Amino acid sequence: MSDPFVVVGGDAAGLSAASKLRREDPDREVIVFEKGQWVSFAHCGTPYFVKGEVESLTDLLSLTPEDVAERGIDLRRGREVVAVDPDARVVTVETPEGTREQPYGDLLVATGARAAQGPFGTMDRDGAFTLHGMDSAAAIRALLTPPAEFAVEDLGGDDYLDAERAARYGAMEPPERVAVVGGGYVGVEMAEALDAWGLDVEVFQRSGTVLPGFGAAIGERVEDHLKAEGVEVHCDTPVDALLGEDRVTGVRVGENRIPADMALVGVGVRPNTELLNGTGIDRDDRGTVVVDRYGRTSAPDVYAAGDCATAFHAVTGQRAWVPLGLTANRAGRAVGTTVAGEPTPVGTTAGTAAVKAMALEAGRTGIIDHEAAREAGYDPVSETITAGSRSGYYPGGSETTVTLTADRGTGRLLGGAIVGRDRAAIRIDTVATALEGGLTVAELERSDLAYAPPFSPVWDPVLVAAKVLGGSL
Amino acid sequence: MSDPFVVVGGDAAGLSAASKLRREDPDREVIVFEKGQWVSFAHCGTPYFVKGEVESLTDLLSLTPEDVAERGIDLRRGREVVAVDPDARVVTVETPEGTREQPYGDLLVATGARAAQGPFGTMDRDGAFTLHGMDSAAAIRALLTPPAEFAVEDLGGDDYLDAERAARYGAMEPPERVAVVGGGYVGVEMAEALDAWGLDVEVFQRSGTVLPGFGAAIGERVEDHLKAEGVEVHCDTPVDALLGEDRVTGVRVGENRIPADMALVGVGVRPNTELLNGTGIDRDDRGTVVVDRYGRTSAPDVYAAGDCATAFHAVTGQRAWVPLGLTANRAGRAVGTTVAGEPTPVGTTAGTAAVKAMALEAGRTGIIDHEAAREAGYDPVSETITAGSRSGYYPGGSETTVTLTADRGTGRLLGGAIVGRDRAAIRIDTVATALEGGLTVAELERSDLAYAPPFSPVWDPVLVAAKVLGGSL
Repeated sequence: MSDPFVVVGGDAAGLSAASKLRREDPDREVIVFEKGQWVSFAHCGTPYFVKGEVESLTDLLSLTPEDVAERGIDLRRGREVVAVDPDARVVTVETPEGTREQPYGDLLVATGARAAQGPFGTMDRDGAFTLHGMDSAAAIRALLTPPAEFAVEDLGGDDYLDAERAARYGAMEPPERVAVVGGGYVGVEMAEALDAWGLDVEVFQRSGTVLPGFGAAIGERVEDHLKAEGVEVHCDTPVDALLGEDRVTGVRVGENRIPADMALVGVGVRPNTELLNGTGIDRDDRGTVVVDRYGRTSAPDVYAAGDCATAFHAVTGQRAWVPLGLTANRAGRAVGTTVAGEPTPVGTTAGTAAVKAMALEAGRTGIIDHEAAREAGYDPVSETITAGSRSGYYPGGSETTVTLTADRGTGRLLGGAIVGRDRAAIRIDTVATALEGGLTVAELERSDLAYAPPFSPVWDPVLVAAKVLGGSL
Repeated sequence: MSDPFVVVGGDAAGLSAASKLRREDPDREVIVFEKGQWVSFAHCGTPYFVKGEVESLTDLLSLTPEDVAERGIDLRRGREVVAVDPDARVVTVETPEGTREQPYGDLLVATGARAAQGPFGTMDRDGAFTLHGMDSAAAIRALLTPPAEFAVEDLGGDDYLDAERAARYGAMEPPERVAVVGGGYVGVEMAEALDAWGLDVEVFQRSGTVLPGFGAAIGERVEDHLKAEGVEVHCDTPVDALLGEDRVTGVRVGENRIPADMALVGVGVRPNTELLNGTGIDRDDRGTVVVDRYGRTSAPDVYAAGDCATAFHAVTGQRAWVPLGLTANRAGRAVGTTVAGEPTPVGTTAGTAAVKAMALEAGRTGIIDHEAAREAGYDPVSETITAGSRSGYYPGGSETTVTLTADRGTGRLLGGAIVGRDRAAIRIDTVATALEGGLTVAELERSDLAYAPPFSPVWDPVLVAAKVLGGSL
């Protein structure tokens, strides 16, 4: 019997792979090492737990450890894999009982990513957070809850929770003024969540608009909306440091010190791949594990999937790093199938993402940024339009802004973004599907999209954008 | 100078063509003959006018005759074109001053379609209606309004309205019980509208489910919802006749007489092409004008577009007749461009449609029906799944049912339908775009669709359906 399929990391990619392999090959031994306590939880749901729309951390668990055990997966929590030896085919695991070696037949590195700290040292002082993982979400909600109303059990999460940290924050007086450092997805979603608690929220964004990956027009509309709802937004305003000794007292922007009694840092993520140091397994300059179309690394029978691995971009065909949930789930599932004996590509990514910003919904996909497009060899042209989400006479519609980018030479659609209040984010799927199909702008314009007064005007905003962009090519 | 561009019919296709030509070739004379008074109105909005969500008929006008005149279009209302002579290049027009002949350089037949009467003779007795055109919508709302609250001016529509008919209905006591004959789009939308007035509504559908074009699974869910909301739905129940002499008293189903004091007949539409009798211009056995990819009929310089003309199907490439708004607008616009000197294909149709059924939204596209698929040379396989519209932990989601159909041999996606309460209808655009791109089920499954807890789970319902269908191929 072959050595087990060893998976490092018990989240989306890791458990998708483990589950799929067990379904396809029920006799194969599968061991999953998870360094923390939490497994298979919905990262993207944590802002809504902080906000309070999701009541309990337990609601965010896709699978409990018991569910995982029922699938016949040997899940070992609190076990960190610290080294890999591809020649000997073993991994080194730190356990409470000491360091152990575990042989593998196939190995999947699914260690994910961690929140970047930048120069901010969020763990150095109280009231400074990143939002990455269930325990940081728990600590934030504990801090926001007045001590008289706080009970650690209300957070949910049973014994996986870092109850000590949560209880310590639960005993503190809630903040009144919070600095959100970074205006990307996490910053925008957390601005909504923190505003809902009645805090004074200030967002600091290094570049010229929030949600820079969505292009300037969409970012500006989100910025305007946040401001209209009472969130202060400062663009072109990089934060240089957090202030305060034991507890956050503010942020420093150049010479200016802006007071705040909480700071939420959302400045991106970094892949967790230090366990591969010294293995010779290919990583890019960011540290991301370089994989082929089947998720295979440069070492035999070693795979990587999810936020720690590269993926192929649906538009450029080149390697890209887009740490997002669907990509991780899909890649994990494909690796499980491949390890079971049926080689299955992990699929491509178009960087499709959606975000809620209070009453607005925004989506993006593909390549919107002209510099990125030129780097990939395209001659980019973009147009932005605003059109109604419904027939003008039907109540409840919303102005919907769409940016589309295409290659001038071939007319091929490269990407797009959208924002509005009414069914806006989900419309980005039309653009994402067009990218998968390699459609030109003219082909997108000819697509027979749905028209019904309550949902869409005769010319859907995406079609209007295609029409206008087609005229500019 | 060439003879004018003559357009027969002042609605979506006709005015799109006329407007586009005037923009591209401002010197060309354009004459539009419209037999009625209304031009360029939103057919699809009439159920919502009846319901009362749209206040005034005037709200449903896309362009007023004054707007049309401003575009330099010579619009002549109340003028019916009754004959075409392609050899002499003239049309015969009935005017209040008698019959006239009008020469044309290019001719567009954009006469649309009319509501089928079946055996029902809806104009023979009071209280029996089809819903086709502004005057029937006005008459229905007049009848639904209690006489004490009725004022013909409240209907809007100024002097285009058939005020005499509206006033006559406005003086009648409102009905209490209405029979809706036909459970297609019009039947379902009107069931919602009539229910909103507090009427007892019974829908009679000839085939096994309402919305037969959406497939059985979607139709059954809509049926269940209508019933739960208090609408009686009778499937497999063809109505044989309307009852009553001067006023509707019920409907007859076989030997059964079901009382009703209003009947709404929605049993399809028929193309208006009698003006081409004797011209030799090709029409199919339904009477639809047969056109090529540029909207050209078999006669030189005679075009047809919109609900009176065929279109090419996006999936089969064969001629089809799918009288829908976007197809008409797009074809008209293309004909205008072609007549201006830049030959432009009218585009294809996938039969994409969406419909609101009270709290449900449904959409469909392409070929779902197996018999139709086999006729087009495919070996159809379908799967239906139900999945959440949002991450399970995020409030406000809805069970979303998706049917996808594909060709077993090639894996090519042929069509699909969807129903749910939360952003369901608009998701059909993903499937429609996949059809435009000729995607296989595997390619659709690999598409990088948006994931964000408030809008979509990691695996969008469309992806879940593709995954399951892929497993059955």
